[in-house]
Amino acid sequence: MNPFRFQNPTALYYGKGQIEQFLASEVTQYGRRVLLVYGGGSIKRSGLYDKVNHILNEAGVTIFELSGVEPNPRLTTVHKGIDICRTENIDLILAVGGGSVLDCSKAIAMGVKYDGDVWDIYQRRAKATGALPLGTILTLAATGSEMNSGGVITNWETKEKLGGGSPYTFPKFSFCDPENTYSVPRDQTIYGTCDMLAHCFEHYFHPTRHTPLQQHLIEAVIKTIVENAKAAIDNPNDYDARETLMYCSTMALNGMINMGIQGDWACHAIEHEISAIYDIPHGGGLAIVFPHWMDYNKNVNPSRFASLATNVFGVDASGKSTDELADIAIAKVREFYKEIGAPQRLADYDIGDDQLDRMASQAVRFGEIGNFKKLNKDDVYAILKASL
Amino acid sequence: MNPFRFQNPTALYYGKGQIEQFLASEVTQYGRRVLLVYGGGSIKRSGLYDKVNHILNEAGVTIFELSGVEPNPRLTTVHKGIDICRTENIDLILAVGGGSVLDCSKAIAMGVKYDGDVWDIYQRRAKATGALPLGTILTLAATGSEMNSGGVITNWETKEKLGGGSPYTFPKFSFCDPENTYSVPRDQTIYGTCDMLAHCFEHYFHPTRHTPLQQHLIEAVIKTIVENAKAAIDNPNDYDARETLMYCSTMALNGMINMGIQGDWACHAIEHEISAIYDIPHGGGLAIVFPHWMDYNKNVNPSRFASLATNVFGVDASGKSTDELADIAIAKVREFYKEIGAPQRLADYDIGDDQLDRMASQAVRFGEIGNFKKLNKDDVYAILKASL
Repeated sequence: MNPFRFQNPTALYYGKGQIEQFLASEVTQYGRRVLLVYGGGSIKRSGLYDKVNHILNEAGVTIFELSGVEPNPRLTTVHKGIDICRTENIDLILAVGGGSVLDCSKAIAMGVKYDGDVWDIYQRRAKATGALPLGTILTLAATGSEMNSGGVITNWETKEKLGGGSPYTFPKFSFCDPENTYSVPRDQTIYGTCDMLAHCFEHYFHPTRHTPLQQHLIEAVIKTIVENAKAAIDNPNDYDARETLMYCSTMALNGMINMGIQGDWACHAIEHEISAIYDIPHGGGLAIVFPHWMDYNKNVNPSRFASLATNVFGVDASGKSTDELADIAIAKVREFYKEIGAPQRLADYDIGDDQLDRMASQAVRFGEIGNFKKLNKDDVYAILKASL
Repeated sequence: MNPFRFQNPTALYYGKGQIEQFLASEVTQYGRRVLLVYGGGSIKRSGLYDKVNHILNEAGVTIFELSGVEPNPRLTTVHKGIDICRTENIDLILAVGGGSVLDCSKAIAMGVKYDGDVWDIYQRRAKATGALPLGTILTLAATGSEMNSGGVITNWETKEKLGGGSPYTFPKFSFCDPENTYSVPRDQTIYGTCDMLAHCFEHYFHPTRHTPLQQHLIEAVIKTIVENAKAAIDNPNDYDARETLMYCSTMALNGMINMGIQGDWACHAIEHEISAIYDIPHGGGLAIVFPHWMDYNKNVNPSRFASLATNVFGVDASGKSTDELADIAIAKVREFYKEIGAPQRLADYDIGDDQLDRMASQAVRFGEIGNFKKLNKDDVYAILKASL
């Protein structure tokens, strides 16, 4: 493995009843002026909004609000949030929602402490200089944003979707109660599953030598997702299934299973270009792109794919070549996506070939992407074309 | 799984060259008066002592020393360390060594900030009220103390060996360079392996319902230990093997694979009573006790043992009953201990039956032990007797 420094200071709360017991004390240690950030109002329908308000009111907290955060959160919304924090002298941002709300809140938290436009940080033209304290209450199992320091923001004017973060943007605390995901619609549960699985794949297909423990840890998460996702999708009120899926999403991207590994991340970069133009769900885009990326790159290290077949999907290796096992692994991945009802092709979102060239160019505008194999514009174009 | 709060703030550095690059900056952010704690002088023979002194001197740090920390660190040594810290106004304790040195340093760190005798905290008669900042440089892969808040101290006068800790005693930073374990003797490498494996078993055999991801994560660590330990034991200068073993030891007990699980910990409690009287190596005692604990408890949940057989040892389940698989798992565990040269019986340390009753009584003096199954004095006695 590569030399690494790992530190993840987030206090993670899991399970029912934790919000009721510990939210007030966690929040008030940072102050009593809180910006509540949320999305389209599903937390009002589920009752979570009222619960949080009640708890914070009882604790003497003054609440300000930023609502309407988009599924792919926009820079304009981030700017609004920064303004409120500055004007109202906010002590803590409390993000209540899924990855989009959390990512938006991280951008706001960094932006408040940065003199220029926070977009500079996402464009890699500046580094964060600090951040307002941030706490989260998660309502969607997907991005892992509740226990990492990164996030993705879309600049709708320039059609750019960029990831960014800083050591300052780890949430101080995150509350994950599986019951808060009961009301997540079927399609969002599917997309969330695709997203967390993609995070595992980005780790798993890496060029770093000698990482036996990391490999088995990543396999553990993939296996658990594959074994449990369908139950959560089919039975939205199944506490155990929702809990497992939520916990997998956190562990897939909190840095604990991939220390010292240089992940790939090409598929994320490619998907960001698709959804920057077409505004499709991130998880859906990933489910479409990943199998084609696998086909395109299986010869780079077929034994990695073979391990996926044997260690995750339980394929009996006897009498099969490594290449055969690699093909079986990819077929199994496709089968899983199909089984849970994920999209298979760009055509499922009515996306044709007219913007392929633009997306491929944009994906590599900072240089080649991916680490398992470096991909140039032609490679990305080929993968996108195969995904049509 | 159980509702939980997880937080592990330690900054973990892994790999060669990290000490040279980052030790000075990590240390000096806490001050410039450092107590260097170490053991019997192996760090002098290996050159690590000189390296650390050189780096800290260059950084303008004043170094005080506490050396001679015992393999089962003693309360008297802890008291010495507390005195030095108070007299010399120490800013940071830097523990350089294995688990014993680290555990001793944690006790010192808590003791400095506690008005009474720090032993109160280990006796559960008081809680820690703070701790001096602590950093570590690990030289032995075993206890996981480099990334957790616990430690074990022996009171030689009362023949008591007790574990304790607090949220304050997570190391601020830990440096794990596999090269610093090259000089660890063969027997210590074996004991270290037994120790980290025992930590995994303590997690794995738990009574908590519905923990699929935790199960696979723990299996990942056990599997990696089983697959890689022999190489490190046989080839002490094999960087990859040492790195894997070291990394397994950290991950086995930093809380990341067992969130929301109520571990068992009976074998640790039993072993502490053995080594409190006979001063045998902790890992050796665990290797002796665990297979007998497994025999004694396999009927509590045979399918857990069966999973160990299939998921870790790759046993083909077809045509075998759960009970048969459970027996195979225990046989495989015994086989592994034998293969790496671990002790098999208390007789290997010339321990007879004359203190069994005393050890059994002491083990349950705070009440029944274990969570997979609660064990009373008779149970402990039976397991000890089987271990003779």
